[in-house]
Amino acid sequence: MNNITIRRVKSFVTAPNGINLVVVKVETSEPGLVGYGCATFTWRYKAVKTAIDEYLDPMLQGKSVHNIEDLWQTMMGSSYWRNGPVLNNAISGVDEALWDIKGKLANMPLYDLLGGKSREGIELYRHADGNSIEEVKENVHALIEEGYRHIRCHMGTYGGNFNGKRQRIIKPVNAPKGAYYHPHKYMNSVIKLLENIRTDFGNDLEIMHDVHERLSLADTLTFVKELEQFKLFFLEDSLPPEQCDFFKILREHTVTPLAMGELFTNPVEWKNIIQNQLINYIRVHISSIGGITPAKKLATFCELYGIKTAWHGPNDLSPIGAVAQMHLDLNINNFGIQEFAGFSEAEKEIFDGCPKIENGYAYLNDKPGLGISFNEEKAKKYPPVEMDFSWLFSRLPDGTATRP
Amino acid sequence: MNNITIRRVKSFVTAPNGINLVVVKVETSEPGLVGYGCATFTWRYKAVKTAIDEYLDPMLQGKSVHNIEDLWQTMMGSSYWRNGPVLNNAISGVDEALWDIKGKLANMPLYDLLGGKSREGIELYRHADGNSIEEVKENVHALIEEGYRHIRCHMGTYGGNFNGKRQRIIKPVNAPKGAYYHPHKYMNSVIKLLENIRTDFGNDLEIMHDVHERLSLADTLTFVKELEQFKLFFLEDSLPPEQCDFFKILREHTVTPLAMGELFTNPVEWKNIIQNQLINYIRVHISSIGGITPAKKLATFCELYGIKTAWHGPNDLSPIGAVAQMHLDLNINNFGIQEFAGFSEAEKEIFDGCPKIENGYAYLNDKPGLGISFNEEKAKKYPPVEMDFSWLFSRLPDGTATRP
Amino acid sequence: MNNITIRRVKSFVTAPNGINLVVVKVETSEPGLVGYGCATFTWRYKAVKTAIDEYLDPMLQGKSVHNIEDLWQTMMGSSYWRNGPVLNNAISGVDEALWDIKGKLANMPLYDLLGGKSREGIELYRHADGNSIEEVKENVHALIEEGYRHIRCHMGTYGGNFNGKRQRIIKPVNAPKGAYYHPHKYMNSVIKLLENIRTDFGNDLEIMHDVHERLSLADTLTFVKELEQFKLFFLEDSLPPEQCDFFKILREHTVTPLAMGELFTNPVEWKNIIQNQLINYIRVHISSIGGITPAKKLATFCELYGIKTAWHGPNDLSPIGAVAQMHLDLNINNFGIQEFAGFSEAEKEIFDGCPKIENGYAYLNDKPGLGISFNEEKAKKYPPVEMDFSWLFSRLPDGTATRP
Amino acid sequence: MNNITIRRVKSFVTAPNGINLVVVKVETSEPGLVGYGCATFTWRYKAVKTAIDEYLDPMLQGKSVHNIEDLWQTMMGSSYWRNGPVLNNAISGVDEALWDIKGKLANMPLYDLLGGKSREGIELYRHADGNSIEEVKENVHALIEEGYRHIRCHMGTYGGNFNGKRQRIIKPVNAPKGAYYHPHKYMNSVIKLLENIRTDFGNDLEIMHDVHERLSLADTLTFVKELEQFKLFFLEDSLPPEQCDFFKILREHTVTPLAMGELFTNPVEWKNIIQNQLINYIRVHISSIGGITPAKKLATFCELYGIKTAWHGPNDLSPIGAVAQMHLDLNINNFGIQEFAGFSEAEKEIFDGCPKIENGYAYLNDKPGLGISFNEEKAKKYPPVEMDFSWLFSRLPDGTATRP
Repeated sequence: MNNITIRRVKSFVTAPNGINLVVVKVETSEPGLVGYGCATFTWRYKAVKTAIDEYLDPMLQGKSVHNIEDLWQTMMGSSYWRNGPVLNNAISGVDEALWDIKGKLANMPLYDLLGGKSREGIELYRHADGNSIEEVKENVHALIEEGYRHIRCHMGTYGGNFNGKRQRIIKPVNAPKGAYYHPHKYMNSVIKLLENIRTDFGNDLEIMHDVHERLSLADTLTFVKELEQFKLFFLEDSLPPEQCDFFKILREHTVTPLAMGELFTNPVEWKNIIQNQLINYIRVHISSIGGITPAKKLATFCELYGIKTAWHGPNDLSPIGAVAQMHLDLNINNFGIQEFAGFSEAEKEIFDGCPKIENGYAYLNDKPGLGISFNEEKAKKYPPVEMDFSWLFSRLPDGTATRP
Repeated sequence: MNNITIRRVKSFVTAPNGINLVVVKVETSEPGLVGYGCATFTWRYKAVKTAIDEYLDPMLQGKSVHNIEDLWQTMMGSSYWRNGPVLNNAISGVDEALWDIKGKLANMPLYDLLGGKSREGIELYRHADGNSIEEVKENVHALIEEGYRHIRCHMGTYGGNFNGKRQRIIKPVNAPKGAYYHPHKYMNSVIKLLENIRTDFGNDLEIMHDVHERLSLADTLTFVKELEQFKLFFLEDSLPPEQCDFFKILREHTVTPLAMGELFTNPVEWKNIIQNQLINYIRVHISSIGGITPAKKLATFCELYGIKTAWHGPNDLSPIGAVAQMHLDLNINNFGIQEFAGFSEAEKEIFDGCPKIENGYAYLNDKPGLGISFNEEKAKKYPPVEMDFSWLFSRLPDGTATRP
Repeated sequence: MNNITIRRVKSFVTAPNGINLVVVKVETSEPGLVGYGCATFTWRYKAVKTAIDEYLDPMLQGKSVHNIEDLWQTMMGSSYWRNGPVLNNAISGVDEALWDIKGKLANMPLYDLLGGKSREGIELYRHADGNSIEEVKENVHALIEEGYRHIRCHMGTYGGNFNGKRQRIIKPVNAPKGAYYHPHKYMNSVIKLLENIRTDFGNDLEIMHDVHERLSLADTLTFVKELEQFKLFFLEDSLPPEQCDFFKILREHTVTPLAMGELFTNPVEWKNIIQNQLINYIRVHISSIGGITPAKKLATFCELYGIKTAWHGPNDLSPIGAVAQMHLDLNINNFGIQEFAGFSEAEKEIFDGCPKIENGYAYLNDKPGLGISFNEEKAKKYPPVEMDFSWLFSRLPDGTATRP
Repeated sequence: MNNITIRRVKSFVTAPNGINLVVVKVETSEPGLVGYGCATFTWRYKAVKTAIDEYLDPMLQGKSVHNIEDLWQTMMGSSYWRNGPVLNNAISGVDEALWDIKGKLANMPLYDLLGGKSREGIELYRHADGNSIEEVKENVHALIEEGYRHIRCHMGTYGGNFNGKRQRIIKPVNAPKGAYYHPHKYMNSVIKLLENIRTDFGNDLEIMHDVHERLSLADTLTFVKELEQFKLFFLEDSLPPEQCDFFKILREHTVTPLAMGELFTNPVEWKNIIQNQLINYIRVHISSIGGITPAKKLATFCELYGIKTAWHGPNDLSPIGAVAQMHLDLNINNFGIQEFAGFSEAEKEIFDGCPKIENGYAYLNDKPGLGISFNEEKAKKYPPVEMDFSWLFSRLPDGTATRP
C-alpha cells in the first residue's frame, strides 16, 4: 500500500450559489482512488487556483499520498514566505483531499479515523437578517419552525446598512463610492432589534450577533457592555485580527461569550488570545488556515484552554469544506457549535453526500473519507461568476476606508 | 532644486481673538518661496519667541530646506535638554513651515504629499457651555442648527465654575486668590446637565465632556463610572499627564471612550497608554510635541493600536496650526474627530486660506503646502495682548493649588 | 492635477539573474506618466501575478492616483481575508508605483517627498560564503577590498550544507529527498569559521550571521550564547516567525544584537517583539508587507522603541524594490544597515537608475520618484525561468521537514 | 513674619568659565532680605531668562515668600503646558531663592532646616579625559594626588571623538558637518582605556564612565556586558530619556551599577525605572526638574526603593546650583556621590561661599540659607558669551543625527 502516489492535483471553480467555490481533486496512482478538498477563498479564487495549478501540482506529483503531515509541512515551507489566505487555501485543498483518500484507504469515515464520534449530531446555527425589525423576526420565526435553536440576528447586513436603506448618513461632499455605515446608528439598531427579539421569542432562543470587525475599539467596548443584557450565545468577531490584543480589555468588561477568528490565517493571530483564555469560541475558516491538519491541531490547542469550536461556515465555502469541518465537529471533545447556511439544490446536485439536516442538527453519512463527491460535469453548469465586491469597500460616514 | 536654503526664520505674535498666537515664517534662498508654521504656546509665548529668534534662526540660516527629518532631529538634540512646551513649540513653527515649503516645491497640498486623502471632509466637534442648563442647551441647539453633530457640553467652564457663579464654596479664612471650584459640586452639575441634554436632544447627538485634569484620581474613578449611562462620544483629559498610569485602573471601570493628551509634550507620556490600548483618542496639541513630523509619527503609532486622533484644536492655536492638523486629518486612516472653535473675522483677515466649514465638516483648499498665508501688515492691527492667567491658578475649596 | 487616474495596472516577470522578478507598472490618464513597483515573491510569483492582473487591475482602473493611503487600505480590505505574501506583494507593486508617480508629480525624489535625507550614503552589508573556511575568507577579503565594512559570513549556504559537501549526515533508510543538514554540525562549523575570521581580519570587521530559522529553539538558545564572543554586528532570523515569543528568553541570554523578520507578512508578527524591544533590527522584505506605505509606518514604530532597520535585500527582489527600500533608508532617522547583493549587468540593462555603489555605501540618484525605470523590451530577453526549489525542502538528518 | 512678600524676581547671566550661567535673585519686602537660585540651562539660557523676566516676575510680585510649596505648584500649573527644561529651570531659580530666604529667616543653613546633616562631608567624583591613554592616565593621576577616590574616565570627550583626533571614520560623500563618532571604535577605545587604568591604578580606584546616550540600544547592551569586568562604580546615562523602558533588558545583563537621568525634565521619565529599581543612582540636573522642592521629593522617592543620588554637577550649573545640591547631599540619608567639576577663580570671585574641597570631600559653610551670595558687579566682568554648539550636532559615520 505504501506505493500509492499522487498522480495529479487538479482544481475546479464552480458557482452553484453565485459564489465561486474552489475544489481540489487529488488523483492517485491507484485507479479510481481520488480525494476532494475545499480551497475556497472566494474573493481571490483565481490566485488560489494559480497556486494550486502552478506550484502544488508539479511539486506533489509522484509524492506518496500517505505522509500527510510531512506533505503539509513541505507545502507550507516550500514558498519560504508563508501563511496568508491564498497559499493556505491552496494547501487546504490538497490536505483535505489527502484526508479523504486516507479515509477511503482505511475504509472509514474521517471522523472514525480521527478517533470516532464524540456526539451523534452537530448543533447548527443560522443567520437571520432583514430590512426591518419585523422582517428579521419573520426570518427568525421561520428558522425556529425549521427546528433551529441558535440564530444570528442582524439588522440589514453587517454594519446594519449594506443596501443603504436603514441608515441616514450625512457624508461630506465628493465622498467616494462605497458601502457606508454609521457605527452608532448600527449599534443602536442592534440594541433595539435584540430587545424586540428577546421580548417576542423569550430567553430560550440562543442568539448570536456578528460585529464583523466593523467597529472601532472604542465602539466595540461600549457595545459589548450594552449587549450583555441580552445574554447572547456569543458575540462574533468583535475585533479585527490585527487588534486581538484588545481582547484583554474587552474581556474585563463583559461576560458575554466571545467568538473570534474567521479571518485568521496565521498561527500568531490566535496564539495569545487562546493561551490567555480571552475568547470562548474559535471560528476559523478551516481552509484559510490550511485545512484539516492545522484545524485538528488548533482544536487540540483550544481544548487545553477550555475553548470550543465554531468553525466559519457560511456559503463562501463548498459543501466539501462544510463536511470537512463537520468530521472534526463529530470527533473532537471541545466542539461548540457549527455555523451553517444551508445547501442549495444546485449544490446538492454537484456535491453528492451533503449532510442531512434535521431539527437543527447536521448528520454526516458513514461513507469512507469525507463521504462527499464532486461531479465535474454538473459543476460546469455553474461556471465562475463575476462577484460583487462592493460590500468589501466599507466606509465610515466621512469616507474613511474600513476593513472590511 | 537641492540648493534651496533657509535664509531666515522669523517669528510674529498677533492676537486677533485676544489670544496671543505665534507664527513662524521661514524665508528661503528662493525669492518668494516662504513657509509658515504655528508655534503657539500662548501662556509662555515670549519664551517660545526667544527660542526661535535667538537659537533656531541663527542655527538654521544656510541649512537646506529639504531635509526636514534631519533638521527636526538636529533642532531637538541641539538644546541637549529637550522636550517640553517651549522648545517643542519653537521647533513646530519651523517644522510646519518646512512642510509648507515642501508642499510648495512639490506643487501639492500637504495632504497629497503625505499620501493623499483618506476622506473628503473633516468631522468637527464644538464646545458649548453656559451658566445655566438652559443656557448650555441654547448653545447646543444653535450648534446643531449650524450642522454640527458632535458637541462638548459643560456647565460654566472647566471645573464648572470659572466665573464663580455656579458653585457656592465655603472657603477657610485667608484663602488666597484663585479660580476655586468644588469637585463634587462640579461632578453633580455635569450629571444633571447631561441628563437634561439626553432628554432634550435624544441619543443621536454625540456628546463629549472634558474633565480638564481637575479631579483627583478618586473622583475621576467615580465620575467615569457615573458618566457611562450617557454614552459619551468620549471623555477628555480625565487625568493629568503625570498620572497616566492610572488609566489602567480607569479602563477597568468604564467602557466610555477615553480621549487624552492635550498637555503631552514628551513621548514618554503617551507611550505606555498607547501600547497598552488604554485610551481611544490621542489629543495632543501638535505644536506642543514639535509639529507635523512627530504628529505624523504619533498618528502612525496610534494606528497600530487601533487608537484614533482628536488633535487639540481650540482657539489657542493659530489658523496655521489648525490647518496643519487638518492636513493630517485628511491623510491618515485613523483620524477620529477634530476639535474646532471657529475662525473669527479678524483671523480670516490675517490668515488667508482658512478651511471652509459646512454641515459640521471642514474642507481644506487644494493650494500647495498648507494652503494658508499670513498677512504681516494686517497682523499688526492685532498686537499681543496681556492675557488673563487667573483661571490657571485653580484651587480646591480649602485653597489647595491644582493643575490647572 | 487632481483628476489623474489609473488607466491600467500591468505586471511583468523577468529573470535577469535567473530569479523571477515581478515588476508592476501603473499607467495613468496622463500621457507618459507611469510608475513602477516591485512585487517580487519569487517562489509564488505566478500567484502574485494573478492577484495583480485579475483583481487589482480591474479594481483600480479609473481610481485617482493621489490617495495612496486610501487605496492601500482598500486593496488590503477588499479581499476580506488579508495579509500573507501573495496579496501583500501584489499590493506592494501598486503601492510603490503610486509613490513613484507621486514623486514624479512633485518633481522630487521619493526620499525628499518623505521629509528629506537623514544621511548621504547608505551603509551596505554583503554575504560571503564558501565550501571551506579558506574559500569564505577569500570571499570576505574580496569584499573588503571593494570597500565593504560589514559582511555576513556563512559556511556553505544556510544550515551550512546546501550542496551536501560540508556535513556528513547519517540518515535512516528510505529517507526522502531534500536539503539535509545537521544542526549541531552546522553550529560547530560556524563557530570554527568565526574564530578564523576574527583571527585573520581582526575586531574592526563587522560580521553578521544568518540562522535562517533552521534551528530548534533549544539549539538557537545554545548558539546565541556561544556566538556572543565574536561580537557580531547582528545575528539574523534566529527564530521562525511563528516562534517570536521565544525572543523573550533569547534576549535574556545574549547581548548579541538581534535582527529579525525577513519572513514577516502580518503586523501581528512584529508587534510584540518591537514593543518589548526584544530585537534590535527589523528586517522585513518590504514588498512582502505591502510596500512603502506599511514599511514607512513600521520604521516609525521601530523608531519609537530604539530599533533600527535592516531591510531584506538579496537578489530575490528587483532593483526597483531595492531602490524603494533605499529611499526609506535615506529618509528615516532609525536606519541601521542595508543588505545588498549587487546588481548584475543584465539587471542594469533592464533597470535604468540603479544606485551607485562606492566604498560600501549606496547612493541614489536625484531623479523624481523612485528614480529607476523598467525597459519592457530588454526584459523580454530574460524571460521567467524554472527555479530550483530544492533548498526549500529542508530536512533534519532523520528526514523531518523543517522550514525552510 | 507672615507678611514678607516678593518684591521682585530678577535674573542675571554671567559666564565666568565661558559657560553662560543663569542666576535668579528674589528680592523681598524686607529690606536686605534676598535669596539666590540657579536657573542654568546653558544651551537655551535666553529662553529661561524670558520665562523668568516676563512671566515669573510679574506673577510673583506681592506673593508671600513663605509658602514655597504652594508657589511651586502655582508656577508649575500656571503655564498650563508644563515640565520641560526652559520652564523648569526658571521655576528652579525662584524655588532655590525661596529656600535660601527661608533659611535666612530661620537663621539656619538649608541642610539644617531640612532636618540636619546625615554626614559631615560630601564625597565627590571628577571627570578625566584625554586624547591618548597616557594623557587620561596623567589626568587621573593628578586627581588622585588631589585626594579624589572617584574618577570618571573618558577617551576624548563623549563618544570618544569630539575633536576628531581619535577615530578614523569613513563618511559618505557630501556628509554634513557635525561631531562625528563611530560607536564601535568608541566602545573599543573605552575597553582598552579601562584595562589600562585598572592595571595601573588597581581595584581601589572607583571608576565611572558616561555613555552620554550616544549608543544605540544594541550597542549599549553589548557595552554594559563587556564593561562588567572593570567593576565600575557606576555607568552613566547609558540610554536616552526616551528609551528608559530598555533598562529592564539592560538590567538583566549586567550587575554594573547604573546611574541615569541628567536629562530628565518630567516626572514620567523617572517614575518607572525607580519604582522597578532598574537603576542605582539618580542623576538629575536639579534645576532642570524645578529646583530643591522637587529634588527633595525625588530623593525621598528614591530612598523608598534603595536608590541613591548622584546629582548632575559639571560646570554648566552655577556655584549656587552646586551648593543647592550639596545641602540635599548633606541632609538626605540616601546620598550616593556628587559629580563635581571644581570652581574657577572667576567663579569664586563672583560667588562668595563656595564649598571647601578637601581630600575628595566637599564641605559647606554654616551660614543661613544656601550660604552663598552673588556679586552682581563682579559678574558683569564675565558677560554672556557665544557658546560653541557644535558638539551637540552629533552624527554617526553615515551622517545620521543622534542626540546629543
